[in-house]
Amino acid sequence: MDRFFDPSSVAILGASNDPAKWGFWLSAGALRGAERRRVHLINSRVASIQAQPTYASLGDLPEVPELLVVSIPGSGVHSVVTEALDAGVGAFLIVSARVPDAADLAARIVSAGARLIGPSSLGIVDSGNDLLLAWGNFTPGSLAVVTQSGQLGTEIATLSARSGLGISRFASIGGQSDVRAAEVLNTLVDDVDTTQVVIYLESFTGGSALVTAMQGLRAAGKPTMILTTGQSDAGARLARSHTGSLTSARDTVDAACRAAGAIRLDTPVEAVELAGYFATSWLPAGRRLAIISDSGGQGAIAADRAESHGLSVDVLSTPTRLRVEEHLPQAGHIDNPIDLDGAGEADLSVHSSLVDALLRDDTIDAVVLSGYFGCYGEDVAALLDAELAEVDRLGEVVRTHRKPLIVHSMSADSQAVAALWQNSIPVYTSIESAMRVIARAGFYAAHSGRITEALEQSGPVTPWGTGYGAARNTLTAAGVPMPRAMTLNRGTELAEALAQSGLTPPFVLKAGWPAHKTELGAIALGLGDAAALEHAHGEMIGRLGEGEYIVEEMDTRDEVVEILVGGRRDEKFGPIVMVGAGGTETELYGDTWLELAPVSHAEALDMISRLTCYRLLTGWRGRTAADLDELAEIIVSVSRLIAGHNEIQEIEINPVRVTPAGALAVDALVVTDRGSDETDSDDENDCSHDSGGRGDAATETDDRGDDEKEPQ
Amino acid sequence: MDRFFDPSSVAILGASNDPAKWGFWLSAGALRGAERRRVHLINSRVASIQAQPTYASLGDLPEVPELLVVSIPGSGVHSVVTEALDAGVGAFLIVSARVPDAADLAARIVSAGARLIGPSSLGIVDSGNDLLLAWGNFTPGSLAVVTQSGQLGTEIATLSARSGLGISRFASIGGQSDVRAAEVLNTLVDDVDTTQVVIYLESFTGGSALVTAMQGLRAAGKPTMILTTGQSDAGARLARSHTGSLTSARDTVDAACRAAGAIRLDTPVEAVELAGYFATSWLPAGRRLAIISDSGGQGAIAADRAESHGLSVDVLSTPTRLRVEEHLPQAGHIDNPIDLDGAGEADLSVHSSLVDALLRDDTIDAVVLSGYFGCYGEDVAALLDAELAEVDRLGEVVRTHRKPLIVHSMSADSQAVAALWQNSIPVYTSIESAMRVIARAGFYAAHSGRITEALEQSGPVTPWGTGYGAARNTLTAAGVPMPRAMTLNRGTELAEALAQSGLTPPFVLKAGWPAHKTELGAIALGLGDAAALEHAHGEMIGRLGEGEYIVEEMDTRDEVVEILVGGRRDEKFGPIVMVGAGGTETELYGDTWLELAPVSHAEALDMISRLTCYRLLTGWRGRTAADLDELAEIIVSVSRLIAGHNEIQEIEINPVRVTPAGALAVDALVVTDRGSDETDSDDENDCSHDSGGRGDAATETDDRGDDEKEPQ
Repeated sequence: MDRFFDPSSVAILGASNDPAKWGFWLSAGALRGAERRRVHLINSRVASIQAQPTYASLGDLPEVPELLVVSIPGSGVHSVVTEALDAGVGAFLIVSARVPDAADLAARIVSAGARLIGPSSLGIVDSGNDLLLAWGNFTPGSLAVVTQSGQLGTEIATLSARSGLGISRFASIGGQSDVRAAEVLNTLVDDVDTTQVVIYLESFTGGSALVTAMQGLRAAGKPTMILTTGQSDAGARLARSHTGSLTSARDTVDAACRAAGAIRLDTPVEAVELAGYFATSWLPAGRRLAIISDSGGQGAIAADRAESHGLSVDVLSTPTRLRVEEHLPQAGHIDNPIDLDGAGEADLSVHSSLVDALLRDDTIDAVVLSGYFGCYGEDVAALLDAELAEVDRLGEVVRTHRKPLIVHSMSADSQAVAALWQNSIPVYTSIESAMRVIARAGFYAAHSGRITEALEQSGPVTPWGTGYGAARNTLTAAGVPMPRAMTLNRGTELAEALAQSGLTPPFVLKAGWPAHKTELGAIALGLGDAAALEHAHGEMIGRLGEGEYIVEEMDTRDEVVEILVGGRRDEKFGPIVMVGAGGTETELYGDTWLELAPVSHAEALDMISRLTCYRLLTGWRGRTAADLDELAEIIVSVSRLIAGHNEIQEIEINPVRVTPAGALAVDALVVTDRGSDETDSDDENDCSHDSGGRGDAATETDDRGDDEKEPQ
Repeated sequence: MDRFFDPSSVAILGASNDPAKWGFWLSAGALRGAERRRVHLINSRVASIQAQPTYASLGDLPEVPELLVVSIPGSGVHSVVTEALDAGVGAFLIVSARVPDAADLAARIVSAGARLIGPSSLGIVDSGNDLLLAWGNFTPGSLAVVTQSGQLGTEIATLSARSGLGISRFASIGGQSDVRAAEVLNTLVDDVDTTQVVIYLESFTGGSALVTAMQGLRAAGKPTMILTTGQSDAGARLARSHTGSLTSARDTVDAACRAAGAIRLDTPVEAVELAGYFATSWLPAGRRLAIISDSGGQGAIAADRAESHGLSVDVLSTPTRLRVEEHLPQAGHIDNPIDLDGAGEADLSVHSSLVDALLRDDTIDAVVLSGYFGCYGEDVAALLDAELAEVDRLGEVVRTHRKPLIVHSMSADSQAVAALWQNSIPVYTSIESAMRVIARAGFYAAHSGRITEALEQSGPVTPWGTGYGAARNTLTAAGVPMPRAMTLNRGTELAEALAQSGLTPPFVLKAGWPAHKTELGAIALGLGDAAALEHAHGEMIGRLGEGEYIVEEMDTRDEVVEILVGGRRDEKFGPIVMVGAGGTETELYGDTWLELAPVSHAEALDMISRLTCYRLLTGWRGRTAADLDELAEIIVSVSRLIAGHNEIQEIEINPVRVTPAGALAVDALVVTDRGSDETDSDDENDCSHDSGGRGDAATETDDRGDDEKEPQ
């Protein structure tokens, strides 16, 4: 990648003197690095550009440039590239848009052993290497930006400059026709100027390489923030299970981020405000916050915002409360939020004393100071020195405890605000930004990534077959507990078979092959004895015909919570495992959680704890707590099954009936794709993730969980 | 209120030359209005302040000031007020904090016929009347701020100045010990400088006066935004029904805002960004958005943000698509979001042409333009004039269509950005702000307030009684459909009574008095005949003793959706009606909606449509749609019952079983409070709303909805 980010020579094809043209910005930017590398400007009609003589054509250059920047109309790009490849150019940055046959162009460049960023790139920047090949001004700094949308990248760069953070490296990689995000990310691990990274991606093709690259950045202590877009409905509609339709592209990216130790955000502003935090402060060890304000109203709003982000603002411990009281003998509200009630005005040093008392407490992970601080010197010049001295004391306090202090100040740009940043204390002009940042930093700290074990493929699941019986066999073999059962085929003598099986009533009878059993009347519940079973069997054969029927013992345990466990294969990120609330809640309330598969027992327990319906499982209204370990084991088994069998596209167990006495999978669906291995789509512009259940060679049964409910 | 906001004379007690003191700011501010009113500065130790001679004491003044501003240590306030009341001062603005016995002080002032703002007020400002009696600088403008937290108010004022909006009137009303928010709001209706209002309140005592005041502002075309805080858990814990525990203080404020035609927001930044919109643009007629961007990435992020705020970004209608294509012959993505794909750079006027084509479309309520626009002239001086000319064209377009255009610009403060604002086009530097604003403006437009009919009190519900039987009687009399039933008292001959009643099996037997029937085994379901009923009755008497037992016909209809309908009495805002998902979903997922009671049939239907579980009721997975009209009638009945009977504290019907064939209330709770009328708490600092079920004289039965489910 050095030929892009630190070439020994660069030539600009399409250099210009007109500031409204790309060729102007590229030339001006390139010339700023003229002390570090040779810069050649090519323009056939103008003798000099920005006081530097030009060359009329590529062939006139005194050397073959290491990097050729192309900024001419798209229609002319192919012939120029041909000429350059012939001359031996090794790297192309193509800014031109509307280049015909871009895929072909990329293929020609790559097959010649050269590399390409573009076409339609908005440019590349490396502040440490004096490289500026882009439109606009880039303030040098510590944030690296890798983006599929050039202008979104410049928005981030602009915001980063405005916030004082600045840019270390910038790469607008367009459609990733050759150089991909993962490759650029790998170069950032050792880039000394880069301390945090923002990526904007629309396509996650080759997702596992991205995960690995982000894990590398995490290991190097460089936080990665991801922006993406497009929660495509189309992919979800193709899915044949709840699991497929309920796992959005964005949820999958989130799971990949957790595995990679990265964090997904929604907008450029959010990314830059968090990047500023990462560049300045320490990661919080948890989500327990203390709030100080010189206004009861601001403190209360701060506490509300904190709680809306899942932060806890608990009553202070007694020793800490006593320490706080020492500094605020007159204040009435020191429960947390702590209301300074005039004490700040009276003595500015109360701020650092309180922050010290709070950060000293092991049960407090971070402090937020909200209100007037930062305005004293701005409003009253005589107070400036005292305020700046207090900033220094605050800096000492945070450096001592190595814990975060975040300030929400009513001043946007006072000297005190600038001094706070310099003292490792991030400052925001809105309380919502302050709280969002500390919450996200906590989330980032709690998800440091994990090694996603790539399971060896175990070969096709056996025995193969279609329908519910095969799904039962596959899952049972994988260790998933299911009701005891027997199969009835044409000619089975039911009474005898039943006696031999040892099954006890009540029974459930299911036709094994229909995709939607309830609608077809292909399931009969609560059959109390052999006679009832025989009657139902005869009736079902009369309606549905002969075929494989399955008799199961009906689960009649008390205190049941119905949970959905599923797996699916994502085209970009591979195997995924999912847990969700059973029944209609799953779809109505979106109460699901997913991770890259496989997962460990501990990770499965963590997944369960993320569900809103977790409360149902842990002793809801005096119920006995459910057997979470057995549910977790089912999640582990499903995760290993989907990860170890490329031919399985979707698994869904709906419901798993979870009780204090264990968990039982009472209906299931396994969609297989025997004929084809996993394929990696090359669709560059598609952020949707097909679920894999493409209706090709697959067979399945599909029951909704509420099949097993008694109709009222 | 004129004595506060436009007094003919004002005296500052505690005037000072020290800019670190309140007395300095109050004096300097007051003197700025010296051409409009007489200003007297009182300080016994300094002969002149800010070049104006001082008076040594109140008694030395040449007149009795209409408004006395008090900024001395709190301990001295009482004696000064006594002196001033004796002298005939009619209005006090008390800035001093730590005033002992503040309630007594207020009472003395009021009983003397004078008025009070404070103590601990941060001041008042009226830009139109050259009144500035506060700390800090207030830029004149169109936003009025009425706040219980002074510093939160100054934060709003600061943000408002920074955004160019400015302040018309500012009132820091502290604990509302005399002058209350509603009274100040009423003065704003006719204040020519005020075009929108932000309120921060912690206490909603006298909520109905506030609702009326906000309705007045709405009628005057002045949007009101409310900030509040503290979703107190304590109040919810006191409630005895789901309805009580699930209706938070904030939900109640939201319902009041909808009734008043106001809107609740979370933070000062949100309020000021929306105020800027209100001051600049038109209200959107709906939530249908068109997005234009010169970047595919920015357009996609914009669409995601739009959808996260409930805005729709639909495919363009064919005629509009054709018009768009005329202007973008080369562009590939014009489905919405529309990607300019270089057309903006090539010809700036494409922006106004497209906006015109889009706003012309009746199915588009607003346009958002996201990206580079606003930066042209900043980056390339030669493009400035063309960009400003395009801004003028955009202004003409929006004035022609009188529909909103909102710009998200990468520039924060270019000339073009300023010109856009001047042309009725709001500009934001973050796409999330732009989308949040247009979504909220749409919400505001859709909730224009309603007259909340104050029902005449109908006298106590009859027949009175305790337990489920009484609740049944009350609800049935109010028109709520319930299962046919009969009552069994000691000595009732069951078989005979059953025969006479004409009830048909299966039956449900309930003991009428226990608060929690399920836990006590005080309910028996699915009793198939008289013998089963008799057996269950005998068994229950054996366990629970004699008492009132109720036999109901069990509802066994198919395709049931369980819904909760409730009502409660809010201490601040009065009667409330609520609908929610039945079963565990209500609590787990918070799927509820409430309004001030009573509501009309149409309003009840609207409430139902707000539930996430609404989809279950309208034909979920091929089910027949439920009878929403009958459910709505139950909501109307409950709303009129709680509104017409002050002695009812809580009503809860859980569940209402809603089917295509009608709705039936199968369990219910009515908490009454015969001994006391509704009381209006005077707790000024408490934002919690007790639910009224205070456990005094009330009696109730309480069943969870899932009592009626067959255990599996």
